[in-house]
Formats: sequence, C-alpha cells, structure tokens
Amino acid sequence: MLQLYFFPMACSLSSRIALMEAGIEAQYHLAHIWTKQVVDDGSDFLGVSPKGAVPVLALENGERLTESAAVLQYIADVKPTAGLAPAFGDPDRYRLQEWLSFIGAEIHKAFLFPTFWYKDDGSLAKPRVRITQTLSVPSAHLAEHEFLVGDSFTVADAHLTWALLLLRPAGVDIAQWPSLSAYLGRMQARPAVREAIATEMALRKAMAA
Amino acid sequence: MLQLYFFPMACSLSSRIALMEAGIEAQYHLAHIWTKQVVDDGSDFLGVSPKGAVPVLALENGERLTESAAVLQYIADVKPTAGLAPAFGDPDRYRLQEWLSFIGAEIHKAFLFPTFWYKDDGSLAKPRVRITQTLSVPSAHLAEHEFLVGDSFTVADAHLTWALLLLRPAGVDIAQWPSLSAYLGRMQARPAVREAIATEMALRKAMAA
Repeated sequence: MLQLYFFPMACSLSSRIALMEAGIEAQYHLAHIWTKQVVDDGSDFLGVSPKGAVPVLALENGERLTESAAVLQYIADVKPTAGLAPAFGDPDRYRLQEWLSFIGAEIHKAFLFPTFWYKDDGSLAKPRVRITQTLSVPSAHLAEHEFLVGDSFTVADAHLTWALLLLRPAGVDIAQWPSLSAYLGRMQARPAVREAIATEMALRKAMAA
Repeated sequence: MLQLYFFPMACSLSSRIALMEAGIEAQYHLAHIWTKQVVDDGSDFLGVSPKGAVPVLALENGERLTESAAVLQYIADVKPTAGLAPAFGDPDRYRLQEWLSFIGAEIHKAFLFPTFWYKDDGSLAKPRVRITQTLSVPSAHLAEHEFLVGDSFTVADAHLTWALLLLRPAGVDIAQWPSLSAYLGRMQARPAVREAIATEMALRKAMAA
C-alpha cells in the first residue's frame, strides 16, 4: 500500500486530495516539518527523507518519492481510469507539467514558503508585490476554463486548490480575482476535496490545541 | 521547426543544452526578460507569453509551452532516441520529474531568482542560509552517481548544469561541494554543453558591451 508522509495543510494536502479523488487507499503518516519527527512512532523524519519536507510517498517497492510535481503524477498514473492526468503521449500532459511547475515554483516556493518560514518583512516585501502578477496567470486561464487542464479535474487542480487555500493565511485575499475565488468554491464542493481538507484542518487544530 | 525564446544565461540555457544534446535544429529568439522585448523584431514578448519569462518553446502547431520542467520533457520526448529522459512508464521518469521540480523550485526560484531580481539584503538573508542545505541534496547523490537519473545524461543534468553555473555569480562557491564541482566539470566537458554555454556567454557579453 502507498504511504504518504504529510503535514496538515502543508503542500502534501494536494497529494492527499489526489489519492482520495482516485479512491486509492493509502497509509498516512504525520511528519512534523518543524521538529523533523514522524508523529506515529517518534522516528526521525530525516531518516525517511533527508530533505525533511513533505510530501514523501513511500512506494510499494520501498522507494520514496518526493516533490509534489512527481508525487502527483505518480499517483495519477497508479490509477489512470480516475483521469487525474492526461495519458503519456497526450499533448495535455505537458500542460499538466507546466501548471505543476508554475504552482510549485511561483506560488509555493516564491511566495507561500517564505511567508510561512521566513516570517520577517525584509524577506517578504518583494514576494508580496510579485504574487499579484503571478496570480493573474491562473486567473486569466480560469476565467475561460472550468479546470486547469482539459475538461476535467486533474492533479494540477489538486495542487492549485491547496495553494489558493493557503493564500488567505498568507495575507492574500483571492476575492480580488473572481475567477480564482469561484474556482476554489467549485473545487471545495467536490466531496473528496472537502473530506481531505476537513481531515487535515481537524489535525491542524488538534496540534494547535 | 521548434522555436525557443531565451535570454542568455537565464534558465532557458538548459533548454538550449537539451536541444543541442538531442541534435534538434531549432530557431532561437532572444527575448529580453527585463525590457520584455523580442530582440529580433522589437515585438512585445508579453504577446508571446503573458508570463514574460523564459523559456518559451513555440511548438510546430503554433502553441507555446512554458516552464523548464515541461519544456525540457517535451524536448526529450521529441527525440526519444537521444535518451534525454527515461521513457514514460519507466519508474525513473518520476525521478527525472523529482529533480526537475527540486532544481526549479529549491535552487532556482528559492535562491537564484531573488538573488538576481531582488538584489537587496533584506530579501536575501534567509535564502542565502538555506541554499547550503539545499545543495547538500544533489551533492550527496552525485558523490555516488555520475548523472542525476540513471546512467546517462538527461534533461535534469541540463537543468542542474545551468543552476550550478549561475551559483558563482550569485555568490556561492560550489568548491565547497567537491561532488558538485566535479560534476559540473564533467558536464562542461560535453561538446553540446560547451557549445551552448559559449554561444550564450558571447551573447551576454555583447549585450553588456
């Protein structure tokens, strides 16, 4: 069985959404990204992955895969009938990769990451200016399309849903972009997405308590 | 014919390396990423891609693909016999995607991008601390492997070669990591890599003159 190392509401949420949308049963291990401890058994998360970051997907053969762009495509390909990624050979597969890269680099690593990890204004002034230009890209696309790639939900939507959810605690009100706001509403109305978010929000609240 | 919009020594260099390693003939257009002008004909680069970033690969059908992770996989798949990416279905394809994401997000977007675009110490103090930990990941891998994925050169190597080249002007001396330094030497000894770099260095110097 696949095993996902996650931290509640961190970017591993998109992998959980993908697993649940595909109906793939998996084991979930809460890995504390600040203390680097696996909460289940108190083991060292750096022993699972030297990067100390989530997601980590432990595969059936014991290997471990990191980086959302790779993990999400792996999950999609485990169950192609779920349609979470265009098949290899379909030109839209590159569009999927394009969005995964954009969300991972431009929204996550260039903005959300420094916001939550660096926390000081000196580090954040420039990223805060830039995020507005960044968000104009998916906003323009979603003004004309229901999903990021093709006509159905893919792992790119799972990843953007997570990123948009995190923008509010990062101080960005997505109501400025009506197409993003409407899109997030549509995504959150999906049962698997709703359940994945509810599960991780409850865990996050329990950790804060 | 494929057309690559590039800026000399920017991250589009890895796409040029991939095209030259594969022996794919292409047209190259210098797009000025600061002025947003296509230098050939003075046209608006934002009309080519609203992101205003390189690489942009104009495909045979007129569509345009952005984001190195997608462009590099596209180029590799145009000529599978060149072996620049494991075939779809090969588990190593996900390792390729994992490295492309890591290089694009952790080295490029989290460090090189703010270094060259933000330029002020407030924005850079935290990324400068973090890059040392980031580079330990490829350093450990390359202490035991000749290439990032499998036993031969792939587009992930093209991308890391570019990133390592830019670390020096970004103020990071990779001599601290002997395995990275030796790897960069091996990559630069490849004729296609050497030619791609020489072409772009000459253009960069001409622009600065």
